[in-house]
Formats: sequence, structure tokens, C-alpha cells
Amino acid sequence: MSMERLVAAINEKNNPTVAGLDPKLDFIPEFIKAECFTEFGETLEGAAEALYRFNTGLIDALWEIVPAVKPQAAYYEMYGWQGVRALERTIRYAQSKGMYVLTDGKRNDIGATMQAYTAAHLGKIKVGSQERIPFGADGLTVNGYLGSDGINPLLEVCRAEDKAIWVLVKTSNPSSGELQDQKLADGRSVYEAMGSMCEEWGRDSIGASGYSAVGAVVGATYPEQLRELREKLPHTFFLVPGYGAQGGGAEDVRFAFDKQGGGAIVNSSRGIMCAYRKTGADERDFAQAAREEALRMKEDLLAVRC
Amino acid sequence: MSMERLVAAINEKNNPTVAGLDPKLDFIPEFIKAECFTEFGETLEGAAEALYRFNTGLIDALWEIVPAVKPQAAYYEMYGWQGVRALERTIRYAQSKGMYVLTDGKRNDIGATMQAYTAAHLGKIKVGSQERIPFGADGLTVNGYLGSDGINPLLEVCRAEDKAIWVLVKTSNPSSGELQDQKLADGRSVYEAMGSMCEEWGRDSIGASGYSAVGAVVGATYPEQLRELREKLPHTFFLVPGYGAQGGGAEDVRFAFDKQGGGAIVNSSRGIMCAYRKTGADERDFAQAAREEALRMKEDLLAVRC
Repeated sequence: MSMERLVAAINEKNNPTVAGLDPKLDFIPEFIKAECFTEFGETLEGAAEALYRFNTGLIDALWEIVPAVKPQAAYYEMYGWQGVRALERTIRYAQSKGMYVLTDGKRNDIGATMQAYTAAHLGKIKVGSQERIPFGADGLTVNGYLGSDGINPLLEVCRAEDKAIWVLVKTSNPSSGELQDQKLADGRSVYEAMGSMCEEWGRDSIGASGYSAVGAVVGATYPEQLRELREKLPHTFFLVPGYGAQGGGAEDVRFAFDKQGGGAIVNSSRGIMCAYRKTGADERDFAQAAREEALRMKEDLLAVRC
Repeated sequence: MSMERLVAAINEKNNPTVAGLDPKLDFIPEFIKAECFTEFGETLEGAAEALYRFNTGLIDALWEIVPAVKPQAAYYEMYGWQGVRALERTIRYAQSKGMYVLTDGKRNDIGATMQAYTAAHLGKIKVGSQERIPFGADGLTVNGYLGSDGINPLLEVCRAEDKAIWVLVKTSNPSSGELQDQKLADGRSVYEAMGSMCEEWGRDSIGASGYSAVGAVVGATYPEQLRELREKLPHTFFLVPGYGAQGGGAEDVRFAFDKQGGGAIVNSSRGIMCAYRKTGADERDFAQAAREEALRMKEDLLAVRC
């Protein structure tokens, strides 16, 4: 149960970037879709196969320079169980290349049901006498609105399987403040209260890096809150969405890092996936374009990191 | 976009009950598992087939007396994409029997990604020139921690497809108060603030029943809060978990109903699914036992409803 495997992967690649894999059909080069529709028809199966081929192309181009990928569950569920199968295949493929896989599912439920989500995404289950691994990601994003009951089952599996979680604290979207910025009677905001809960949930899993297995999602689009939370949550590793397409720049995300340049990983989804559209490259060069954007982003982050 | 289809289904059956379909293998009669493992091995495919056969047995026994089912996504994801396929098959089977299907997914994300979840669970997607329906449930539970951006995409699809959503307000678990009961500076609790947001989100979809397409999840285990929220949220239809196995009784859930006996649907999952274990019935009579428990619960609720 720790954040150490991710920290090691970031250090090895010297790159605090996670590549978001949110492969809706609109983002996928036409030639891949044409191949898959010819083979499987204009079906959910065909769509899911296109997702998978796009992802493997990206992973092949990225695994040497980027330590982690973050598939967003919504973009797989959108293509039915066939899409969810593509999620599972994507996770295994990325892991076969040594990448850390963080499923962005924002799952949440009461205790008994959260055990099921935990087994699904991070753990194992028993089928008769056999043990099976349903999805087997390395980390999962979760929503803490339900409190400890919904987090404790995750901590148990994180301990048993050396996995990590990220709790939504201050999200990157424009309306995140409607609830998250509300002031509590004790003077804290709701997001601060959630952040404190992360420190508490992580108390028993602080590793050599100084960070626990319980991270927080804090958006790059709110640099002030990022800076404030970095100070108040010294053992909480940040997953930072909102860089690039959502408007956050390196100047904004730099507040996510600690004084040693650690403590955070920054996500880019469309920026990397759809780089081929910005460079004017032939769509068949989508993977090379993604790699170049990932290298540019790495330099951008390293320049401000500390 | 409305709650009217569900209200009509409740009135038709004169039963404000939704049967939770949370079919983990532990709950499934041995003879079903034995059949499926013989056919498919002790695999995720075998497990998923057992889920589906258990569900269809329950649906066959319940559809004439219970208006709705609530599959909990976690218990399907736990068996990998094969389990998620069983979810999709279960939704279609229940709908073929005229049941209203409410997927309990507690999904949540920023706007662009929430569009994907919405299309996945309630809407349609384009694959090439074809329109496909990934899961096609009638309703979905969601988490509102991210604010309006995460809710608006749902409202659009609810409008286009006459669907409904339920937002977590006060959940049934013991630790729900850690965040939800925190007092805001303006004197409201976090759950009250979330409840007010439901009224606001539902403003433009109030139907003939007086309720909007935006419902709230409020646990039977907190009867005081249930009573308080029923008064404060006059247009918000409640989905009430926590009856039965979690400790809530009819005396507790009665506060969920309005003065006309409307405005709420009460969930029972294990109570109905696992009724065969309590009656001492042969496990082959699981469906009959579920039906008898559903009839008992109906009488229990009708007696207190008003």
C-alpha cells in the first residue's frame, strides 16, 4: 500500500506526466476507424476495437518517456460492454510495457458496495476455486462524498496489493466551486475538509517518498487552491488534471510540486491524444505527434518544477 | 425529461418498491453457479452468466408486482467486462418485462466526460453512420460533488430521452455524516446544500406529479433527515436505500413520502435477492421466496405510506 511504485516510475522517466487515454471515436484517426468498421461493422464492437488500436499506438509511442496512463472509464462505458472490454485490454497492454495504470473512474459507494468496486478495479475476486483479476489497474480515482465507509475497503486492497487511490478534492471544472468552495462553519472550505480527510485516510501508508497511498485530485485550473493545498497536505500526492486543453499551463501546475519537485503528476489527455491535429501531421503519424507533444510537455513541466 | 414514467409504474403496481439487483456470487444459489461453471468454467464468463440467470429468475418472479429494478454497477464490474455485459443483458431483460431500470452507478465527472457517462448509461451514441444504445437504462444515480457542469449533460439527455437521475444527498452508510453533515457558514449542512442544488437542477422538468427529473438519494437509516428533506425539497423524488438489511424499517422510510403517499421509491436489495436464505426454502425456490418478500415489503410500505 503505497505511492512508491508511481514515484519510482516518475523518477525513472524523469517525467511527472500521466497521459490520459480518453479515446472517443471523434478523436481517433479515420484510417483506424475505417479498418475496424470494415472488419466489425459500424457496431459497438467495431468502435471498441478502434479504441484499442488507437490506445496501443499511443502506448507504443509513449511508454519509454511517460511513466503512466490514465484511462477515463466513461469513454469506454460509452461503447457498452465492448468498450469496457477495450478498457481491460488497454490496462493489460500498458502494464505489459511497464506503465503505471491509473483508472479514472471516480467510483464511490457505501462500504459493502465499495468492496465490489475495489475488487473490480484494483483487486482480485474468487470464482469458484479460482482467483480472477477483473481489471487490475494500479490506481483508481474515487469520490469521498460518502465518507470513510466508502474509502476503507479501498485502503484494505491498497495494502494487500500495493495500490493507490486519488480522492476528488478540488476539481478542474468551472462549477467545481458550487459545493467544493462553500465555507464551513469552522472557516474551512468543503475542499479543504475533503483534503484533510485524505491526510487522515493516508496516515498509515506513508512511504519513503513522504507520500501516502491516498492522493488527491486537484485541478490545474485553480492554481491558488493548488498552492494552498500543497502546503496543507504534505503527505498527499496530487493528480493534476486541467493542463492544456482545459486551460492550465506549466505556470499554474508548478504549485502542485513540493520543494524537491515531487508530490504530483500532471495529466494531459486531448493534448497528447489529439496532437496530430495540431501539428498538421498526416493522421497516420498520430503516435509520433503524441510522442513529440509528450516530450514538449515534459520539458515544460521540468522547467517549472523547481 | 421527467419522473412521470416511474410515477406511473409505481401507481400501476401500487407499490413504491425498487428491487436492487446486486448479484455477487455469494448471494447466488449453488445450483445456478454449478450449471454455469460446468458450461463456462470457473471464469469471469461463468460468473457473469450466473449473475444473469439469477437476475432473470428474480425478474420473472417480480415484474408483475414490483415496478422497478436497480442494478448496482459495482457488482457487475466486479466480474470484469463479462460482468458488465451481464449488466447490459439484465437491463434489456427487465425492460422487456416492462420494468423501469435505474442503474446505480453514482457516476460523476467534469462536463465533457459526463457527456460520455450520460451517453453510456442513458443515451445513444453514433458509430459511423449508425446509432447505438450502449446500456439504455431509464435512470441513473450520480454524485454532485463537481457541481452543475457534471449535471447539465445529464439534464440534456434526460430531456431528449425522457430519463431521470438521482443525486446523492444524504447516503445511508454510517460515515455519511463526515462530509454531508458538516455545517456551512450559512447554517445549512452540506447535504442540505446538495438538496437545494437538486431542486435547482430540476426546476425546468417538473411534471404532472409535481416532481422533477432530478431526484435525490436519501437513506432510510436517517429518518430525521429524511423528514426534514421531504419538507424542504417538494419537487425532488427520493430514492431511499437502507430499508431491510441496513437497518431501516417502514417506520423510518414513511417520512420519505409526501402527503399523497407519493414522492419516493424504497430499495431493497439483499432482503429480496437473498430471501430464500431466511425462509429456509430450497435454494431452487429463490425466485418464489423473493416474490413473497416483495409482497411482504409492499404491504409493509403501504401500511405506513398514508
